[in-house]
Amino acid sequence: MSYAQTHPGQESPFAKWTRGLKHSALQDMLVAGSRPGVLSLALGLPAAELFPVAAYSQAITKVLAGDPRALQYGPPFQPLKKHIVALMAERGVLCREEQVFLTAGAQQGTNLLARLLLEQGSQVIAEEKMYPGFKQVLQPYEPHILTVPTDPATGMDVDAVERLLFSGVRPALIYAIADGHNPLAVSMSLEKRERLAGLARRYRVPIIEDDPYGFLFYESNAQPPLLAFDDEWVFYVGTFSKILAPALRTGWLVVPESLVNLLATVKEAADINTAPLSQRAISAYLDTGLLDEHLSMLRREYRTRRDAMLHALESLMPDDTRWQQPASGLFVWVELPAEVDSGALLAQAIAEEQLVFVPGYTFSITERPCLKNSVRLNFSNNSVARIADGVARLARLLNRNRPLANDSRVKASLPGLFSPNEIIQNSR
Amino acid sequence: MSYAQTHPGQESPFAKWTRGLKHSALQDMLVAGSRPGVLSLALGLPAAELFPVAAYSQAITKVLAGDPRALQYGPPFQPLKKHIVALMAERGVLCREEQVFLTAGAQQGTNLLARLLLEQGSQVIAEEKMYPGFKQVLQPYEPHILTVPTDPATGMDVDAVERLLFSGVRPALIYAIADGHNPLAVSMSLEKRERLAGLARRYRVPIIEDDPYGFLFYESNAQPPLLAFDDEWVFYVGTFSKILAPALRTGWLVVPESLVNLLATVKEAADINTAPLSQRAISAYLDTGLLDEHLSMLRREYRTRRDAMLHALESLMPDDTRWQQPASGLFVWVELPAEVDSGALLAQAIAEEQLVFVPGYTFSITERPCLKNSVRLNFSNNSVARIADGVARLARLLNRNRPLANDSRVKASLPGLFSPNEIIQNSR
Repeated sequence: MSYAQTHPGQESPFAKWTRGLKHSALQDMLVAGSRPGVLSLALGLPAAELFPVAAYSQAITKVLAGDPRALQYGPPFQPLKKHIVALMAERGVLCREEQVFLTAGAQQGTNLLARLLLEQGSQVIAEEKMYPGFKQVLQPYEPHILTVPTDPATGMDVDAVERLLFSGVRPALIYAIADGHNPLAVSMSLEKRERLAGLARRYRVPIIEDDPYGFLFYESNAQPPLLAFDDEWVFYVGTFSKILAPALRTGWLVVPESLVNLLATVKEAADINTAPLSQRAISAYLDTGLLDEHLSMLRREYRTRRDAMLHALESLMPDDTRWQQPASGLFVWVELPAEVDSGALLAQAIAEEQLVFVPGYTFSITERPCLKNSVRLNFSNNSVARIADGVARLARLLNRNRPLANDSRVKASLPGLFSPNEIIQNSR
Repeated sequence: MSYAQTHPGQESPFAKWTRGLKHSALQDMLVAGSRPGVLSLALGLPAAELFPVAAYSQAITKVLAGDPRALQYGPPFQPLKKHIVALMAERGVLCREEQVFLTAGAQQGTNLLARLLLEQGSQVIAEEKMYPGFKQVLQPYEPHILTVPTDPATGMDVDAVERLLFSGVRPALIYAIADGHNPLAVSMSLEKRERLAGLARRYRVPIIEDDPYGFLFYESNAQPPLLAFDDEWVFYVGTFSKILAPALRTGWLVVPESLVNLLATVKEAADINTAPLSQRAISAYLDTGLLDEHLSMLRREYRTRRDAMLHALESLMPDDTRWQQPASGLFVWVELPAEVDSGALLAQAIAEEQLVFVPGYTFSITERPCLKNSVRLNFSNNSVARIADGVARLARLLNRNRPLANDSRVKASLPGLFSPNEIIQNSR
């Protein structure tokens, strides 16, 4: 909806870049699809039933009883920064409190960094498939995005990045998600991490490392973030949204100390300061030492859900479907049979199967047709039974849509493995 | 501190506008001046001891116990919008829930609106003295600011605005604080409100009405905000920071319904959503119906503090000092004797009197020398006794600095009215 539409014949009072803001048909479908009874594998929500509600409630009550300044404007809360330094150490990053900048979550973190780094029309290096929230961050700057491919097993094509930089391109930033990539679910290989951080340093190009999922790893070989390989050109974006709860709107950056004053000014312009009550309550929660156990529980539980999704995909999907096992994060990226148009499939899924997911084209920067047959499935926000049910609905739809052929296995297994009764019984 | 300084001889990786970011000597003084023992009349802080801590704590505990979704990502909480519609009605504004857009406070409200309205180098109409937070919002757009004067008794010079618009200027926005202007402490006359809103409509130029203080009025003749006179071209910015507590980081916009989708996209890019826990806790607090009484208490208490400051100014300041009685807000704007340089005075005040305030030049857009002898004094964040003490320290300093002459009255009255003992006894 544009202001121009409500004022026909008049010039819009809004900045030019807003003309690129399209009303999203997908958004409509997601809203329509979020009504009760619909099974959603769409959004990247953490599991609300796993939030540490009681412990956090105790922490916030304690903070409010102890100090009315918790409700006042206030400078960044130093004890929270100290906790963050300890958290980063668990990921193999040695940093100092002076490098930690508190934000209202990872989205704000990337937004503030973009504000500092981007001019109108700046160049940016990014993968072909991008988290839509970062597309939104970029949009007002109308940047020239130079895309590089992503290998489904090892992540961003660092050779392609190097070719661009070697050719003389000096983008304002490189955008990377090294762990549990959204949407591609891949974690970058150790070798690529080292090389990418090295390129940033050699060519003096900042990397925004967006790391909402780095603490949610499901295999023993988790790697340190890019930040561990260069703390001058890698600007790290972390958040409590996925490891504690999104509604706290609290995250952090780890950046060179010389950036902190600049960021403070940009942050002040954005929203004065990060909610002091949240800062203090999170710090009080972390004081209890319960986070380690909570993280172990989350990893265990999300691993179980991931495995349930992988098992259902393996059991139910047509043979010409491809996916990787994600080592981290909240998603599985599924390439459906080549003839599938996932946008049309979503509309049909809502209508016929009460199912929603995110079609791959949503993440496209260029409009490549190769994304038409991909979907992103979330496994963190449903029980094992509902995950299996969701994949079954998707498989049923795919099989209904295609000529009977080599997929008799799927159809035979479907009612047997996941009858509605079983699903209801297994629900939790 | 610029990145260039830490990387001599290298080009800065930051956007050009960041070169205009100066390290603020004032900020240093304020920090230095906020150490224990220093009396601060500087910042626009509400009184922490008046926050409804117990009631808010109950509200948040209830919300956390009742619904784990309070910690999840979530859409704007409709019951809170309903409360805001009722609040606005108390100010004489009839609006609908569909016009209410929730934000992380007034600063974010103005920031999001600027994002929609401003191009690089856009024109803006504003008063010569501007809230520094809005200067920060404007800075990245490097706008061309067309300034208009302010009448100390009736507010913004609307004739000057009309002349600009009549001459053909079409700015991207007009910035206005109609109630309890920061820093000038003036509330706009009714006639000017009507005319300014009418100009916005006639010339199709949006007004950002920044209204953090509108609910804090101290006289019976409080006027409705600009929004009441035009709800198509006035974009209203409200906040709970001053009427409940700043740390909640929750505010609202009232805008034409057609803007809400655009704002939702810009907000999502900024920080996904306004903390759902704060939204629900504020709504639960408002459900109790305690706000009316709380607001009455705040108005009573802040009026008392304002009057204490006015009385102290009247009793203690040199004759050639000028100020107005503010009808709203948190500040008194004081024009000191013409020879005073308030920047130098602040340094001296910290060193000799353990006193901080904000020198007028901080609010200047142009660098007019007429601001040199002005200061902004806050009356909300100190007890009556400390306010009197603060003004006494300021008067003492001024009198020490000038030749003995016509201010014998001041020196005579100083020890009698506010002896240190009395001040300590009256502290609360």
